[in-house]
Amino acid sequence: MDIQTKFSDKVKDLEASAIREIFKLLGKPGVISFAGGAPDPELFPCEELAKAAFNVLKDQGKIALQYGVTEGYAPLRDWVKNRLVSQGIIKKDDNNETIIVSGGQQGIDLAAKSLLNPGDGVVCEQPSFIGGLNCFRSYNAEIYGVRNESDGLDMEELEELLKQHKNIKIVYTIATFQNPSGITMSLEKRRKLLELADKYDFIIFEDNPYGELGFSGETVPTIKSMDKNDRVVYLGSFSKILSPGIRVGFTSCHRDLMERMIICKQVQDVHTNVVAQMIIYEYISNNSIDEHIKKLRAAYGEKCRFMCECMDKFFPKCVTHTHPDGGLFLFCDMPEGYDAKEIMAKAVERGVAFVPGSTTMIDDKAVCSSFRMNYSTASKAEIEKGIKILGDLLKEEVGE
Amino acid sequence: MDIQTKFSDKVKDLEASAIREIFKLLGKPGVISFAGGAPDPELFPCEELAKAAFNVLKDQGKIALQYGVTEGYAPLRDWVKNRLVSQGIIKKDDNNETIIVSGGQQGIDLAAKSLLNPGDGVVCEQPSFIGGLNCFRSYNAEIYGVRNESDGLDMEELEELLKQHKNIKIVYTIATFQNPSGITMSLEKRRKLLELADKYDFIIFEDNPYGELGFSGETVPTIKSMDKNDRVVYLGSFSKILSPGIRVGFTSCHRDLMERMIICKQVQDVHTNVVAQMIIYEYISNNSIDEHIKKLRAAYGEKCRFMCECMDKFFPKCVTHTHPDGGLFLFCDMPEGYDAKEIMAKAVERGVAFVPGSTTMIDDKAVCSSFRMNYSTASKAEIEKGIKILGDLLKEEVGE
Repeated sequence: MDIQTKFSDKVKDLEASAIREIFKLLGKPGVISFAGGAPDPELFPCEELAKAAFNVLKDQGKIALQYGVTEGYAPLRDWVKNRLVSQGIIKKDDNNETIIVSGGQQGIDLAAKSLLNPGDGVVCEQPSFIGGLNCFRSYNAEIYGVRNESDGLDMEELEELLKQHKNIKIVYTIATFQNPSGITMSLEKRRKLLELADKYDFIIFEDNPYGELGFSGETVPTIKSMDKNDRVVYLGSFSKILSPGIRVGFTSCHRDLMERMIICKQVQDVHTNVVAQMIIYEYISNNSIDEHIKKLRAAYGEKCRFMCECMDKFFPKCVTHTHPDGGLFLFCDMPEGYDAKEIMAKAVERGVAFVPGSTTMIDDKAVCSSFRMNYSTASKAEIEKGIKILGDLLKEEVGE
Repeated sequence: MDIQTKFSDKVKDLEASAIREIFKLLGKPGVISFAGGAPDPELFPCEELAKAAFNVLKDQGKIALQYGVTEGYAPLRDWVKNRLVSQGIIKKDDNNETIIVSGGQQGIDLAAKSLLNPGDGVVCEQPSFIGGLNCFRSYNAEIYGVRNESDGLDMEELEELLKQHKNIKIVYTIATFQNPSGITMSLEKRRKLLELADKYDFIIFEDNPYGELGFSGETVPTIKSMDKNDRVVYLGSFSKILSPGIRVGFTSCHRDLMERMIICKQVQDVHTNVVAQMIIYEYISNNSIDEHIKKLRAAYGEKCRFMCECMDKFFPKCVTHTHPDGGLFLFCDMPEGYDAKEIMAKAVERGVAFVPGSTTMIDDKAVCSSFRMNYSTASKAEIEKGIKILGDLLKEEVGE
């Protein structure tokens, strides 16, 4: 049978995540990887979660192991709602509904499936998160990129696009400590984005997995917190503050849209793993998640500062980098014309890996002189060693 | 904002699972429910799974809590592959790829998304599983029903449809101990179905969550085991043999189709919960899953026989029922014209619930005189009491 002829238009030309392909290059032992996007496993509260899991399955196994409701395990759902209210992100009695999803990615997918017809337009930050880009591609959306400036989306470029393209239904933003750039959108731009949403009638996806990982403690208010007309689909997750492997996230949006998303979730995975939801609920009932998050902030903040220092010391001056105030990533720019993909291949040979910026661009085939660096998983010694190797290579390839 | 105008064509007319709506009627305390589709929670190996979870998180937490690969946790994936090979379902070195998914439902969804354009045809058994039907609806497929006879799909009706409708891309079947009917497709019909698949060039989804739950120990070979041209997408799950709440299933199909499905899974939930996969792997490494399944078979077989006996004793003669040889369900037919939905409402008032057959039909608005009965969760005392109440009601409503 010629299976190739059977594929749907949506998926026949999709490509596997280029980042995954890069990971295959990393089989070489001893490679220092700044390519990942994962939290530091040394900081997982394994003991506490082991106890939580044991208690849940021993005492409430008949609930944990049985089918659950699509909206999520009620005590965890209530906890999330209350937390979002206490953080000012949603209001107690508004038009929003909050549900538990199988990781933040599922929230993007359910909202995209509920809203996108083939050819509908989605605006993404340039660069953006590959999981978001690929999701919109998988519904045959037309994706438009808008430059992410040091204070977030270029609002003039965005409005120009909105005037030109009447098909734009969604603007997707990781407004706080963005992946891959580490950039945070300013308060003024957040307000402007909501104004534009009203004027041009689009929906905002605010993907906020890193929002709690601010190094200074101060964060700009979420877009959702200023969302008077229920235009924002807010996407949150336990992945970066507790564990990504356990696949539990949450999402909050207008209840009518959420009703569609819940039906999509029913046909997608029925409900999120109850065992996982109850383990998390047991953990947060017996431990302070805020104390845990404080530890993460301190650790990632220190590593980020250290990586910036090493870059300033070892990188050629013509290679610049962002200065994130939170999250897991920073983004480097070589002078235009250099191909980060080619340099990445050479770097891997010398024992260092990163993510070429092309994989975070809408046109992922074009030559791209930027690259993403993750600082959360390597040790400080590895950061110093890896940045030195990379700096030497960049000096050879790009010049001082 | 008028959010209603924003919904995609795919989902704007979808309705929530009618079975879920029925569950809302069941709030009344003391209702004996034959409406569920869940395994008996008394049979969950809670202690063993509690120990497994504790060990996994304590000793291997850094792996379990970290991001995993989309294809699944390698040791569990290998275990599943080897089991499918030893059961004769796949061959050791064939064109198939096997991956772990977040429950059997996700396998249906990923394959549907990878294959279906709007308007493509899907043939389903009539009655069929609502999760399958709703999934195909969510991709705007055209769904055709074929009568499920006591030995499976009516092959003449199917071929007639295939001649008439050139858009048919998929035939979806729960060939063994079907949900909702309990019917098993005969070996002859399985061979015929594969013949037709070659002749009319379609793909078969063989959804087999109940295959291991045969009461007599004998089962008809799976369609996948006779699949010479890689036309079968095989869908399996731990939901009915271990736990549905833990959301771990598996699927096996042509590697090129699987490649598409893996990309869809990346944008859907990145990967299946690693904690859950490792708990299952730890459990099956230290316990005999086959001994556990033997217990389930014996328990469900006894309850099924007992429910049939009670029906034969208390139901009017004009209400007939299937005689499943495995699985969790049997299906009852009243004489034509009676509306199982109306009778269900009256039954709930008397303290008994079941699933009206209309929810399992392609046209779920038409009057349907059939209903689904689940025997796995009620106790024998509840079965006797509930069937007696239902029998009295049916005698009043339908006559002797």
